[in-house]
Amino acid sequence: MKTIKILAVAAILLLSHACNTQVEKKENTKSLIPEEAIFPKGELGPATNFTGNAYNFGLVENDSVYNTLAGNVYFEKGARSNWHVHPSGQILIVLDGEGYHQLEGQPKQTMKKGDVVECPPNVKHWHGATENNSLTQMYILPKTENGIVTWLEAVTDEQYISN
Amino acid sequence: MKTIKILAVAAILLLSHACNTQVEKKENTKSLIPEEAIFPKGELGPATNFTGNAYNFGLVENDSVYNTLAGNVYFEKGARSNWHVHPSGQILIVLDGEGYHQLEGQPKQTMKKGDVVECPPNVKHWHGATENNSLTQMYILPKTENGIVTWLEAVTDEQYISN
Repeated sequence: MKTIKILAVAAILLLSHACNTQVEKKENTKSLIPEEAIFPKGELGPATNFTGNAYNFGLVENDSVYNTLAGNVYFEKGARSNWHVHPSGQILIVLDGEGYHQLEGQPKQTMKKGDVVECPPNVKHWHGATENNSLTQMYILPKTENGIVTWLEAVTDEQYISN
Repeated sequence: MKTIKILAVAAILLLSHACNTQVEKKENTKSLIPEEAIFPKGELGPATNFTGNAYNFGLVENDSVYNTLAGNVYFEKGARSNWHVHPSGQILIVLDGEGYHQLEGQPKQTMKKGDVVECPPNVKHWHGATENNSLTQMYILPKTENGIVTWLEAVTDEQYISN
């Protein structure tokens, strides 16, 4: 009986160790996810232009050769830009997560990984993450010789949750 | 003794089942990788403009509002564009993998996930995957009112492998 007990305990310990190894590997896999991000998180956007935490990482600086400004914004869930206007419009390309985008006077639209959204010149709009998901979103501003952005008022909670 | 045996076997079976569940979860995580691509693969580029298989997926169509053309190219390993020229230049943004980029008269450069490469207006250049890695690469063409692209001769194997 003693032998059986010892063998049983040994087997349990062995299997238990094997399980722990699997769990550890799973945790490592999880911890790799941030490394899979294409761009660094970037710099926290100012509270004067954003509600919640949104981080900007510049990709293309404005110059007179390309007249194009591009970058990546990581919005934490619930975070969004203020209302704003681009004189030559803006193109959004969603790289990950899920977000909202709204042109003034139109219903809020949901956007997700792989979506491309065009915001026409001089149309007041906002964009950001959904309540439950973060959003990783590239932006392209063309024709920067006309200007970059005019920041306006914050998106209220009512506006944010409206359909 | 019988009770101990039964308990030991039950414990072993339980732990063994827990281990199998972990393994299954790990395998599921692995099989998700292809689904993690941001954009569809797109359409195979013509052999007249590419060596090897390169697939283009359009993101932003050219129009007179934004005067910007953007898309994503997936180059299989070893695949590359012909030499070509953009009248207003081109911005490359690497989303995944590893590739090469070369401006005429300059050494070939390696580019990898997260890199941004600017190809000046009217400079002959080519880009593509490395010998051992595929390349997923967005492109932005600004100021399309000046034209899009002039395709030139293929990049020879000698040029491709040169330093």
